[in-house]
Amino acid sequence: MKTRAAVAWGANQPLTIETVDLEGPKAGEVLMEVMATGICHTDAYTLSGLDSEGLFPAILGHEGAGIVREVGAGVTSVRPGDHVIPLYTPECRQCKTCLSRRSNLCTAIRATQGKGVMPDGTSRFACDPAHEKPLFHYMGCSTFSNFTVLPEIAVAKVREDAPFDKICYIGCGVTTGIGAVIYTAKVWPGANVVVFGLGGIGLNVIQGARMVGADRIIGVDINPAKEAMARKFGMTHFVNPKAVGNDKVVQAIQDLTDGGADFSFDCTGNVNVMRQALECCHRGWGESIVIGVAPAGAEIATRPFQLVTGRVWKGSAFGGARGRTDVPKIVDWYMEGKINIDDLITHTMPLEQINHGFELMEKGESIRSVVVF
Amino acid sequence: MKTRAAVAWGANQPLTIETVDLEGPKAGEVLMEVMATGICHTDAYTLSGLDSEGLFPAILGHEGAGIVREVGAGVTSVRPGDHVIPLYTPECRQCKTCLSRRSNLCTAIRATQGKGVMPDGTSRFACDPAHEKPLFHYMGCSTFSNFTVLPEIAVAKVREDAPFDKICYIGCGVTTGIGAVIYTAKVWPGANVVVFGLGGIGLNVIQGARMVGADRIIGVDINPAKEAMARKFGMTHFVNPKAVGNDKVVQAIQDLTDGGADFSFDCTGNVNVMRQALECCHRGWGESIVIGVAPAGAEIATRPFQLVTGRVWKGSAFGGARGRTDVPKIVDWYMEGKINIDDLITHTMPLEQINHGFELMEKGESIRSVVVF
Repeated sequence: MKTRAAVAWGANQPLTIETVDLEGPKAGEVLMEVMATGICHTDAYTLSGLDSEGLFPAILGHEGAGIVREVGAGVTSVRPGDHVIPLYTPECRQCKTCLSRRSNLCTAIRATQGKGVMPDGTSRFACDPAHEKPLFHYMGCSTFSNFTVLPEIAVAKVREDAPFDKICYIGCGVTTGIGAVIYTAKVWPGANVVVFGLGGIGLNVIQGARMVGADRIIGVDINPAKEAMARKFGMTHFVNPKAVGNDKVVQAIQDLTDGGADFSFDCTGNVNVMRQALECCHRGWGESIVIGVAPAGAEIATRPFQLVTGRVWKGSAFGGARGRTDVPKIVDWYMEGKINIDDLITHTMPLEQINHGFELMEKGESIRSVVVF
Repeated sequence: MKTRAAVAWGANQPLTIETVDLEGPKAGEVLMEVMATGICHTDAYTLSGLDSEGLFPAILGHEGAGIVREVGAGVTSVRPGDHVIPLYTPECRQCKTCLSRRSNLCTAIRATQGKGVMPDGTSRFACDPAHEKPLFHYMGCSTFSNFTVLPEIAVAKVREDAPFDKICYIGCGVTTGIGAVIYTAKVWPGANVVVFGLGGIGLNVIQGARMVGADRIIGVDINPAKEAMARKFGMTHFVNPKAVGNDKVVQAIQDLTDGGADFSFDCTGNVNVMRQALECCHRGWGESIVIGVAPAGAEIATRPFQLVTGRVWKGSAFGGARGRTDVPKIVDWYMEGKINIDDLITHTMPLEQINHGFELMEKGESIRSVVVF
């Protein structure tokens, strides 16, 4: 079939809207009509060329929502008409990691997904008429295409009354932030929480902490303009490193928390901030969770004394959420009003304006832009 | 009263046996007759002058066992005749940390203990006749004295049939190693465990892992002479970095464990080894526990990707054990034959030969030397 898609031809080139060929679903795969997709920093990171694993040409996008239109042989868990959210972290429920019950990082299709192809080693997309040049999938999703093909294990079936243009954000940012609180850190009621970086992920961490009954929720950002929105999502205290002095941030947090945070979250990707996030944790039990993606080759460091005296350093990918199991629950929470997504989606646009969406993100003028097909 | 003690007069000076003055216990304190004491690397570290918080002159020693001989006003939990093990990590059961139920690092007397004095800010020891110069306590214990005074919250009451010259080792090394397995890491039955450094702490980690039913227990040491003893304590596989190549240690462990360790323990204090210990952990859930004490100023480092993909970096002090609660249990385990201490105590000597004990440790000729009064 033919489908309309935004194609990334190479690093730092604007996406162009093309009509591309899409092969139907093979065994174990589903054809999905993408109804809406968010534009995420990770898409921009790959488009920038800094992602050493980035492949071109490719159809980017990994934060979508839509409807199953066709299923391949052997697919049993979804059928045409089902509403789904694509999962860049799939959940096969059969690999060593899924069966460990200790991690969401399913490895079933990791190798091929990283190479921009489907599990059988080939791409369903093609752009040149002779199909001689590859057109790669991206993060197993490629939601910047109106139609896309996904492995069955990489779609989460969700309720049908949820609006696509909002729940697409659960495909990445919402789950990454809220999941880090609930599934990775397991923040307890009454905990003191510190969030470094008040972008979209940070705001979702904040509302996750509020949802589970955290006590103080301290936001840290060098941009004072972030304060008002963060307070709306549950932040109780704001620390601006430029105001208190960057070398006094840890002390400022210890002062606000009677000795240190029970949990801290890095949502910046800056390795120096990650160190502050660890060291502001409470002696004896404070846990720091790295969410942000650092530049290639960057390293985190601290004195081991920080760990020996009881702090814990961990990380979170896709919020520790098992996609098929947990994403539908988060959709429910949104529909029940437990979490706020509407105020995070600051811009909506047609596919033709997708490059404008990237510009808004790069300028910091949007929290989340959503493309509606 | 007068007591016989080995006094450390300054960095890198041999201890001398002196008769010193000891003031009786004040309110909340107990007078203890030390029957036996181990000589630990931490004593040597302080004696070397590298410990920036080391104070001289002082009576070192923190790994003892003995009998309560007198109690001060208000002491209710022990009485004269009770057998006790001194606790350099006390357990007040009243401070924020004790009440958190999340850490063993009681803070009740931390400030004064670090200054070499009792909680009232003064020393019970004196060496010069006029008592004008201070003679400092050490780690709140000073077990290199035949009699010492301790806060009530810093003694663990233990059964009376346990031999002092063995259970003194539970006052530090045994609990540090076994506790790290049981209380900090919470190693589960069937887990794959890797232990870096096969000295006394490493051997205790190994027997702790065996006790809780670990599957593979892999020891890593550059000295092949350590292998035989480690196998006796439960090690199932041995990796010598000098044999496999230091840059292939992580791969060798991943090969032995189908992808990585469930738990790793650093018992070396070497920050490069600490990094290997983290990175050999299984993607998704592997936890690395730092036990070793690094040189002042040394830092650990890794790429944050290691954490984001599910590895956890933590540390352990005194094995995560709450002294008054857990130390008596470990004494029971020894008496029940669940753990082996006898083979770890390679040398026993009178106080007069204590400097020889330090020499044996520095030359690597002993696992543990014990001074018997």
